[in-house]
Amino acid sequence: MAMRLSEVSAAVLETQYAVRGPIVARAQALERAGKRIIYCNIGNPQALGQKPLTWIRQGLALGEYPVLADLPGGSFPEDAIENSRRFLEGSGHGLGAYSESKGVRIVRDTVAEFIDRRDGGDGSAAVPVKADPDSIFLTDGASKAVQTALRMLIASAHDGIMIPIPQYPLYSASIALYGGKQVGYYLDEAEGWALSESMLEDAFVAARAEGTKVKAICVINPGNPTGAVLDRDNIAMVIRFASRHGLAILADEVYQDNIYRPGLRFVSFARVMAELGETDVSLFSFHSCSKGLLGECGQRGGYMEIRNIPVDVAAQITKLQSVSLCANLPGQLALYFMVKPPRPGDPSRNLYDHERSAIMDTLKARAILLAEGLSAIPGYSCAPISGAMYAFPRIDIPAGKTDEDYCLDLLETTGICVVPGSGFGQKPGTAHFRTTILPPVADLESVVHAIAAFHATWR
Amino acid sequence: MAMRLSEVSAAVLETQYAVRGPIVARAQALERAGKRIIYCNIGNPQALGQKPLTWIRQGLALGEYPVLADLPGGSFPEDAIENSRRFLEGSGHGLGAYSESKGVRIVRDTVAEFIDRRDGGDGSAAVPVKADPDSIFLTDGASKAVQTALRMLIASAHDGIMIPIPQYPLYSASIALYGGKQVGYYLDEAEGWALSESMLEDAFVAARAEGTKVKAICVINPGNPTGAVLDRDNIAMVIRFASRHGLAILADEVYQDNIYRPGLRFVSFARVMAELGETDVSLFSFHSCSKGLLGECGQRGGYMEIRNIPVDVAAQITKLQSVSLCANLPGQLALYFMVKPPRPGDPSRNLYDHERSAIMDTLKARAILLAEGLSAIPGYSCAPISGAMYAFPRIDIPAGKTDEDYCLDLLETTGICVVPGSGFGQKPGTAHFRTTILPPVADLESVVHAIAAFHATWR
Repeated sequence: MAMRLSEVSAAVLETQYAVRGPIVARAQALERAGKRIIYCNIGNPQALGQKPLTWIRQGLALGEYPVLADLPGGSFPEDAIENSRRFLEGSGHGLGAYSESKGVRIVRDTVAEFIDRRDGGDGSAAVPVKADPDSIFLTDGASKAVQTALRMLIASAHDGIMIPIPQYPLYSASIALYGGKQVGYYLDEAEGWALSESMLEDAFVAARAEGTKVKAICVINPGNPTGAVLDRDNIAMVIRFASRHGLAILADEVYQDNIYRPGLRFVSFARVMAELGETDVSLFSFHSCSKGLLGECGQRGGYMEIRNIPVDVAAQITKLQSVSLCANLPGQLALYFMVKPPRPGDPSRNLYDHERSAIMDTLKARAILLAEGLSAIPGYSCAPISGAMYAFPRIDIPAGKTDEDYCLDLLETTGICVVPGSGFGQKPGTAHFRTTILPPVADLESVVHAIAAFHATWR
Repeated sequence: MAMRLSEVSAAVLETQYAVRGPIVARAQALERAGKRIIYCNIGNPQALGQKPLTWIRQGLALGEYPVLADLPGGSFPEDAIENSRRFLEGSGHGLGAYSESKGVRIVRDTVAEFIDRRDGGDGSAAVPVKADPDSIFLTDGASKAVQTALRMLIASAHDGIMIPIPQYPLYSASIALYGGKQVGYYLDEAEGWALSESMLEDAFVAARAEGTKVKAICVINPGNPTGAVLDRDNIAMVIRFASRHGLAILADEVYQDNIYRPGLRFVSFARVMAELGETDVSLFSFHSCSKGLLGECGQRGGYMEIRNIPVDVAAQITKLQSVSLCANLPGQLALYFMVKPPRPGDPSRNLYDHERSAIMDTLKARAILLAEGLSAIPGYSCAPISGAMYAFPRIDIPAGKTDEDYCLDLLETTGICVVPGSGFGQKPGTAHFRTTILPPVADLESVVHAIAAFHATWR
């Protein structure tokens, strides 16, 4: 007798992942039937025409096929060759062998140096933050790292994880899969999706009253889907909140290079924690080569850094990693080249700077174009897109209709594929959708026009 | 308050993965202290000197950095260029974009053609087996595929999964992690680790008597750690057993190209199932680019093929895959080149044949050398190594001592790192260890001598 759906665990059945949910399946069916689809459902830059950085791809080619370094005619710049040699020697056996479970040591060393430069641990800050390579775990994209952290935190059906509303559905999906409780805390849409202490406390108190044991709080900064960027005070407030209630923090920082508004800068949870002298709040931070200016989603390179986690707990994380052996080595190599860019004066530096600026300029232009364009549609309101890769406009829709209805009709009418707000969470009685900023500028202008025309007639 | 070990779920704590367990940690510590370690704990061919196939690495380099195809001087053969172009066009966006959750369509099509050629679905068999690309899921190595299948099957703490004893510890670890029950069935060591119907029935009846609901049976063919190869009758017996008791089958076939004894050949569960006309037993089959003659462990390319699984259940598998988006694209490309080798007469064919034969010849030689060498040690018995990459000798050790003690002392004395039989499971009162056949022949001879010398004096 073949397997039946009724035998599958409730946890699996309850897991929902809207970013690749029914609307995307419908889009694929329409595309197979010949309709042109603009995929705005997922932050997948290279699928919408973004070019990979030459530096990364030269590194990967040299890693996969090292004899390329010896080609006559200098097809590869010396610094790319040198960097790939250093990786290959450090890895011991190249891209074809399993690495140790945490990932290749030289990559973890280099990630630690990257964190130190970013956070002032290289001596430039008053309170130096020193990253420890043994506290860095390389993973198949940051998604797998987030799942590992949640797996470590959820031990029973009463264990709760605080997540922002709206959130990125990896969190709700994984919490459901591991049998925990999702504890949503609202972001303040009227204040550009700001994070407020009272909203955190409200959510915590309500969860505890229901018998939930809150274990951790997740923060996504820059925000997905909101586009908001937290400042130092915001982050300090979250750390004090976590400390007060004995919570761990999951800091999803995969969009740390995607900040578009002048005057804003990325501040890491690790840095603020060090500045506060906080040594008793467990922190999991996540980063990736899928976002930023690389957009190398397909390579599946990511890492998790842990702080204030006892050695015996960290050993359990290593054990979980070891069961499926190690993260893919090309992804580890992509991460190595990401955190070790060409130095000023090195042969690859000019091209690298040029390619990065071009990508940053166009992302900035798209963020402004999209937020302003959507805000101008009657019945729409859209916060400025300070960071990340998304807009999450609020839409007025007739009573009795849902944002799923809206997004499905939008897809059928215009070929534009976005994700309903319900997949991310929103205040009852409100409706939203998430769209990426990633289509090229010309396409993005037509997207805005098509949405405006659609909205004017949709009932 | 930082996380404590006592808060981590029992399922995580109970998960054990001996292949990377305490003895391996000790080996790494000894190595850092300057001792020479021979790692025989894990099937990681390229870590022990096996060279990657040029075909695969050229494909990966061209995929990562497509301008290489245009290099003057014909640095890459035409067929590698053509194959990589076909992949890149089929993928739509190359290696830097997420693919659909199941994996790039052209790779799944090509895997289906590979299965058809292997199993006679291309018309060469009396009962054609047709593989369906929509039933193929590309994964980060076969380990992730096995975990997905187990996740689908285990819905409660009463659900049991039959696994061979000895087994590959991915199975016991994942069953523990998902909160299921491990139901061990013995393999018959006296008969070269044969699989017998009565031993299956005994295990099933005992589990049911304890209140366990047995959901599936796992079979590893060729066997890890046993080295045994199943014949058609064996496989048909397992299928009938599964049918009788309403079980799904997990067929771990990652060593299908690693068969060394003349006269033996690999027969897939899918093929026998089709020949029997069995359409009601759910089958999950696994394959990988980590083993075989590629040994590309680090690329983390693998796939799962499902048969006789209802559409609504299959949709749940796709959903689980979608939560972490997709398998890494370099691994998908490695798999594509694996299942689409150069054709006779194509420019890459000669080198490909030459490299494959060289690898096959040395693996055969090592399998014989190791099994004969170990069998000749007084106090050892070792079945012939018909397939896979391991020996699992039985050792006589003094009462009161364990195979963990033995393996730890062996490591400290000789630098040889093997895994105790207890990590794989064995009959009470017996002791074994698993060693790979992978060290180069000269090293393998010293390994055998060093083990013999160690065993003669160990008390």
